Amino acid sequence: MIKVGIFGATGYTGVELVKLLSRHSKARIGFAHSDSNAGTKLSDVLPCPYDIPLIKADDAPISNVDVVFSCLPHAASAELCKRVVDAGKRVVDLSADFRLRDAAVYAEWYKHTHPHPELLDEAVYGLPEIYRRDIADAQIVGNPGCYPTSIILGVLPLLELGALAEPVIIADSKSGASGAGRKPSQATHFVEVNENLAPYNIGHAHRHVPEIEQELNAAWSGRSGEVSVEGGETLHSHLSTLHILFSPHLLPISRGMLSMLYVKLTAQAAQADWRSIYARRYDGEPFVRVLPKGQISTIAHATHTNYAAISVHPVAGMPDRLQVVSCIDNLVKGASGQALQNMNIMFGIDECEGLR
Amino acid sequence: MIKVGIFGATGYTGVELVKLLSRHSKARIGFAHSDSNAGTKLSDVLPCPYDIPLIKADDAPISNVDVVFSCLPHAASAELCKRVVDAGKRVVDLSADFRLRDAAVYAEWYKHTHPHPELLDEAVYGLPEIYRRDIADAQIVGNPGCYPTSIILGVLPLLELGALAEPVIIADSKSGASGAGRKPSQATHFVEVNENLAPYNIGHAHRHVPEIEQELNAAWSGRSGEVSVEGGETLHSHLSTLHILFSPHLLPISRGMLSMLYVKLTAQAAQADWRSIYARRYDGEPFVRVLPKGQISTIAHATHTNYAAISVHPVAGMPDRLQVVSCIDNLVKGASGQALQNMNIMFGIDECEGLR
Amino acid sequence: MIKVGIFGATGYTGVELVKLLSRHSKARIGFAHSDSNAGTKLSDVLPCPYDIPLIKADDAPISNVDVVFSCLPHAASAELCKRVVDAGKRVVDLSADFRLRDAAVYAEWYKHTHPHPELLDEAVYGLPEIYRRDIADAQIVGNPGCYPTSIILGVLPLLELGALAEPVIIADSKSGASGAGRKPSQATHFVEVNENLAPYNIGHAHRHVPEIEQELNAAWSGRSGEVSVEGGETLHSHLSTLHILFSPHLLPISRGMLSMLYVKLTAQAAQADWRSIYARRYDGEPFVRVLPKGQISTIAHATHTNYAAISVHPVAGMPDRLQVVSCIDNLVKGASGQALQNMNIMFGIDECEGLR
Amino acid sequence: MIKVGIFGATGYTGVELVKLLSRHSKARIGFAHSDSNAGTKLSDVLPCPYDIPLIKADDAPISNVDVVFSCLPHAASAELCKRVVDAGKRVVDLSADFRLRDAAVYAEWYKHTHPHPELLDEAVYGLPEIYRRDIADAQIVGNPGCYPTSIILGVLPLLELGALAEPVIIADSKSGASGAGRKPSQATHFVEVNENLAPYNIGHAHRHVPEIEQELNAAWSGRSGEVSVEGGETLHSHLSTLHILFSPHLLPISRGMLSMLYVKLTAQAAQADWRSIYARRYDGEPFVRVLPKGQISTIAHATHTNYAAISVHPVAGMPDRLQVVSCIDNLVKGASGQALQNMNIMFGIDECEGLR
Repeated sequence: MIKVGIFGATGYTGVELVKLLSRHSKARIGFAHSDSNAGTKLSDVLPCPYDIPLIKADDAPISNVDVVFSCLPHAASAELCKRVVDAGKRVVDLSADFRLRDAAVYAEWYKHTHPHPELLDEAVYGLPEIYRRDIADAQIVGNPGCYPTSIILGVLPLLELGALAEPVIIADSKSGASGAGRKPSQATHFVEVNENLAPYNIGHAHRHVPEIEQELNAAWSGRSGEVSVEGGETLHSHLSTLHILFSPHLLPISRGMLSMLYVKLTAQAAQADWRSIYARRYDGEPFVRVLPKGQISTIAHATHTNYAAISVHPVAGMPDRLQVVSCIDNLVKGASGQALQNMNIMFGIDECEGLR
Repeated sequence: MIKVGIFGATGYTGVELVKLLSRHSKARIGFAHSDSNAGTKLSDVLPCPYDIPLIKADDAPISNVDVVFSCLPHAASAELCKRVVDAGKRVVDLSADFRLRDAAVYAEWYKHTHPHPELLDEAVYGLPEIYRRDIADAQIVGNPGCYPTSIILGVLPLLELGALAEPVIIADSKSGASGAGRKPSQATHFVEVNENLAPYNIGHAHRHVPEIEQELNAAWSGRSGEVSVEGGETLHSHLSTLHILFSPHLLPISRGMLSMLYVKLTAQAAQADWRSIYARRYDGEPFVRVLPKGQISTIAHATHTNYAAISVHPVAGMPDRLQVVSCIDNLVKGASGQALQNMNIMFGIDECEGLR
Repeated sequence: MIKVGIFGATGYTGVELVKLLSRHSKARIGFAHSDSNAGTKLSDVLPCPYDIPLIKADDAPISNVDVVFSCLPHAASAELCKRVVDAGKRVVDLSADFRLRDAAVYAEWYKHTHPHPELLDEAVYGLPEIYRRDIADAQIVGNPGCYPTSIILGVLPLLELGALAEPVIIADSKSGASGAGRKPSQATHFVEVNENLAPYNIGHAHRHVPEIEQELNAAWSGRSGEVSVEGGETLHSHLSTLHILFSPHLLPISRGMLSMLYVKLTAQAAQADWRSIYARRYDGEPFVRVLPKGQISTIAHATHTNYAAISVHPVAGMPDRLQVVSCIDNLVKGASGQALQNMNIMFGIDECEGLR
Repeated sequence: MIKVGIFGATGYTGVELVKLLSRHSKARIGFAHSDSNAGTKLSDVLPCPYDIPLIKADDAPISNVDVVFSCLPHAASAELCKRVVDAGKRVVDLSADFRLRDAAVYAEWYKHTHPHPELLDEAVYGLPEIYRRDIADAQIVGNPGCYPTSIILGVLPLLELGALAEPVIIADSKSGASGAGRKPSQATHFVEVNENLAPYNIGHAHRHVPEIEQELNAAWSGRSGEVSVEGGETLHSHLSTLHILFSPHLLPISRGMLSMLYVKLTAQAAQADWRSIYARRYDGEPFVRVLPKGQISTIAHATHTNYAAISVHPVAGMPDRLQVVSCIDNLVKGASGQALQNMNIMFGIDECEGLR
C-alpha cells in the first residue's frame, strides 16, 4: 500500500486527488495539509464526503509517507518539495515549479527567482506519453499544466514527424473556471463568468507559453530525421524554433478544456491521413483516445475522466491546413489524474489504477 | 427632463439602473458615483457600453439633480441619503435603510444602529401596488428588497381578504447570484454556485424576514373586516400575527427569482376561485401579471422585465391548501426597475416610462 | 464475477450504470441493449469512452447473465423484466413498473394497465435503508424514483417516531435536467432550461406522488407504537394517512436534486434534538450522511456520489416546525448508484463496491 | 408610425424582434404570424409578457403594413417574401434566402433550389457598416447571419486596407445555443449543451462559409488601391481570393457570440497601429465599439445590446500576426437588432431608435 501525503488539499486539484485516491486500491492518504484550515476536516471546508483531518505543513509526517503530491501555488510549492526530497521521499508537484528546465525562463514568466534551481535538473516533465520511462525513475515529477497537456498531446504526432510548414501553431483554448483556482476574485465571480466567454492573457502573455514552447520544440528537434510517414522518408522541415499563438478563454463551465489547434502542413504532409497516424501514435496509450472519423471531440468526451479525447480534421479546399480538437478534464488529465498516473508509473503498478 | 444622481453605480443594481435610464425619455443621468473607481468610466469597470464618468461622493453635485438613487450598502446608504434630504432633494434608497419602520428591529437584524432614525417616519415603503399614493408625495422612498417584493405580491390578495387559517406562510424562495452583490466571496465563486443549489440563512435567519413580516402584517391587519370575497362577508380570521417561514436558496443563474408560497386557507376561503381574485386585485397594475389558468410562472416569465409573474394553484385533494408561484427579476422589479417605477410615480409621469 | 445485462443502455441512467460498473471489481457487463442504436457502440451514441457494442432486445443473451438492469421507460420495462424473470434471472428495474404495490394505482397515474400485475407481489421496493433484508432475497427489485428517494430518506426518522402533528408534508423539490430523460423536447431545450427555474406538475399531479405516499404511510403506520424518542414513550400521533404536497422544479443543472422538506411537529416532538436522532437513525448506513450542526446540505454535497446528504434545521421562534434538506445525485443515489447498491446486496458482496 | 408584420414570430429571433419593437417609439406591430400556433397568443407559446395574437400566413394582412420581417427558415422564407414584394411592401428577411448573390452557390450549400432567384439582384446585404446607402433604398434586405456579422466587422478594416499577407483568415467562433433555433433536437438538449463546448461543422462545412467569403472578397477587391494607411501608400497585396477557416462551437450559454480572428499581416501592415485604425474606421458607427487599449472584448460586452464589441491585439514576438476579438449578441446585432437597424435606415428615421 502506497502512503500518500498531500500539500494543499483544499484547492480544486487537492480535493480531486482525494476523490481519485478514494477509488485507488493500492494507495491511501497518510496526511492532508492546509495551513489555513488546519484543525478542521476536508468535509468542513468543501461540500464533499471526505472527513479527512487537515494539518499544518510543519506537522506533516513526511517521513511516514512514500510520496507527496503538492497542490500548492508556485514558489511555495518548491519550498515544501525541497523538504520532501531532503527526506528521501518522492514528489509529484502540480505547481509550475518543476516544469521549466531553465530557471531564468521561470524567473521571467513567474516574476520570482526559483527557490531551488538546483533541483530542476533531476525533475522530469510528467507527461507519460513522452517521458514514461524517465518518470518511472524520477524522484521529482513536474506535473504538466492543463493547457500544455491538451496542446502538446494534440500536436505531438505532427511534431514527431516534422510535418509543419510554418513555425507557428495556433491554439485557441477554452477552459472551465476551476482552472482559475478556488480563491475568490472578480474574474471568477459567478455573474461575471456565467453567460459569458472571456479571452484572457492573449497575445503571447499566458504563463503556460514557455512550458508549451519548451515541449513543442523538444518534440520537434529531438525526433528530427528519426521517423518517417507511411514507411517513406521523413517529413521534417527546416524550421528551427516553433512558437505557439495561444489564446486562452474562460468558459462558463466548472471543469473541462478544449484546445482547437491550427497548423500549416508541408506539401508532403498534406497528403497523409493524419487521423490514422494519430491513432497509431497513441495506440496502446491508456489515456489518449483518437476519435473515429466523423466524430468531433467535445469537452463532454473528457469530463470526469483521465482521457485526452482527440479528433483530427482536414479542411475542405485547403489541403495544407489541419485542425485538431484536443479535450481533457483540466482537473483530471490536466492535473490530479495525470499526477496519479505518474505516481502509478513511479511505483511500478498498473498505470490505470484509480483512473478507470 | 428629470436629472438623476446615482450613488454606488458600479454594483449590479447601479449598472441596471444606468441601463434602464438609457431608455427613459424623460430622465437623464446627472452624476454617477463610485468612490473606489472615481476617475474612470463605468465602461472601464464593467463590460457595458456606458462611458459615464465616475466621481467621488464628496464631488457629487447633489444640488444639481432632482432625485438620487442610492445603491450603496446599508448604513453607508443612510449617511448619503441624509445629505440628499438636507439638500431638499428626493431619494430612492435601494438599501435596507428605509424599509423597516422600527429602528430597534433594524439594529437587531442589521447589527448596526440606524444612522438616521429620525428619517424613518417620513420614509415610504416603495411597493407601488400598496403604497402608490404615499410614494407620489414622498421625499424618501425605501425601495423594497427582492425577496420581499416577490413574496408580498404573491400573497397580498390572500392577506387583504383575511384568507389564512394558519399564521405561518411558507416561502421557498430561489434567487439568482446577482442578488448576492458584486463583491467576490467564496460563496459566489463560479465553481461553488454552478451545478449547485444552496439554501442559506434558513430557519428564520435571513435579514429580509423582518421586512417581509412587517408588510405581511400591515396588509393583514390593516384591511381587516373591510373587504369581502365574492360580494359576501369578509373572510378575516382571528390570527393575530403572521410569520414567514422563509427559505432562500442560491440558484446557478445570474438574475431572476422565484418564490413558491404555501398557505393554509380558512374553510370559507377554500371555496373561492383564487386565480380570479388575484386577477381582479391586480387588474390595472402595470407590472403584475397573473397568468391564465393552466400556466405556471417560471423565472423566464420575468427576467429582464419589470413584471412580477404570478400563478395561483389549488392542490388536488387538499382544498384548504393553496400554492402561489411569484417570479420577478431581482435586479428589475426586485431593485432598479421598481426604483425607477417609484421615481416615475414621484414625478407624476407615466409609471411605465423606461420600463416597457 | 457477476455478469450484468443492461436494457436501455443509451439513456442517462444506462450510461451512468456503465460508468459505475467500469469501476466495480466484481461485476462486468454481459450485454448492453438499445434497439434504436443496435449495431453501433455506446461511444458512438454519447460522448463517453465506452466502446461497448449495442444489441437488439431480441438478441440479448439473458440466460448468460446473472442480473439485468432495466433502464427502459415504464410499461416497456415490465415486458422485458418478465422475460428475465421467466429465464430465472434477477432484475433491478429502474422504471416505475415495480415500485407501486397496487396495479390500480399504477393504472391511474401512468395511464396504462400494468403489463404484469402478477409480478408486483414478489417485487421489493429497492430502498436499502428500509428494505435491505428483503432486497437480499428478491428476484425483482423496483428501484425507487429519484424524488421519492430524496423525500423518504429526508423524513424517515420523523415518521418512524410518529413525530408529525399534521398529515401533510411539504416537499419543495428541485431536480437537474437529466431527470427528464435524454429524449429531446421543448421543455429540455437548453435555452428554455438555462437561466430559468420552472415548477412543473405542481398541485399533487406528479407521477411520483403515489410512490412517495405509499412509502411514507408504510413507514408511518408500520412502526407505530414500536419506537420511542429519547428512551421515553412513543410520539406517534393519531393521524391516519399522510399526504405529500409535492412541488417539483426543473433546475438549470445537469444532475443533482434537493428536496426542502417542511413538517409540523407534535408538542412532544418539538422538544427533541432531531439532528441527533437523524444521526443515530442513519448511523451505519453507508450512503446517508447527516451533516454536522451548522452545515446546510447543498446539491454539491451529493453530486457524482451515491450519498444522500441530509441536514436538519429547527426554525427560530417556531418550535413546532422542522426543516430538512435532503440532497442526492438523481443519476446515482436517485437511480443507477442505488441500483448497483441493490445488486451488491442481492449478491451478498460489499454494499459499497463500485460506489465509493 | 411604421406598421410592421412578422412572419415566424415564435422563434427566438421573432420574440426578440417583438421585444425590441415594444420599445420603439415609431413602429408598432400590425400582425404576428405562426402557422403552428395560430389562434393563440405569443405569451401562450413562450414565457413573455406579449399578449399578441398569432395568425396563419394566409390571414396575414400584408397590404396593411409598411414592412415585414421574416424569421422563417430558408426557402419557406423566400416564398413569403415574394408575396410581400408583390404587394409592393418592403421586407427584411432574417433567413439565408437573400444573403447570397449567386443562386448556384445557394443551391450548393442549402441543398435547395432558390425559390425566387429573380429577386436576388434587388436584395441588399443588410450590414449597415458597409451597405448603409443601398439599404436605405432597398425593397428587400437580406439580414446577415450572426457568424458573418461578427467576422466581417472583425476584419473589415484589414480588408479595406489590403493588409493580409495570406489568403486564409482563421475564425474560431463560439455561439450561444439560441443560434441553433428553438426546435428541439438532441444537439440542443440541456444536458448535452451544459458543461460542454462542442465544435461543429468544422473543416469548411458550415453554411455561413459562402456568405462570409462573399463579403470578405467584396471588401478585399472592391476597395483595392483606393485607401491608404497613415496617409501613405496602399497596403493592398496581390492575393486574389480570400478564404475563411471557420470553426463554429456551441457554447453553454443562451445568447452571445465571440469570434477570435487570426490574420497574417504584410510587412508594411505589421507596422501599423491597428487599434487606432479600427477606431477611426468605426468612428461614427452607432453600433460598433472598438475597445480601448488594454481591454479584451468578451461576450458580456455585447449581450442584450445591438453593439459589436471589438478589441484588437498585436502578438508579442510575432509582429506579422494580429488577433481580433469580435463579440455580438447573436439575437440582436446578429439578427433582430440588426434587422430593426435596417428598418430604421429604410424608413429614414434615427438608426438607433428602439436599440439603445
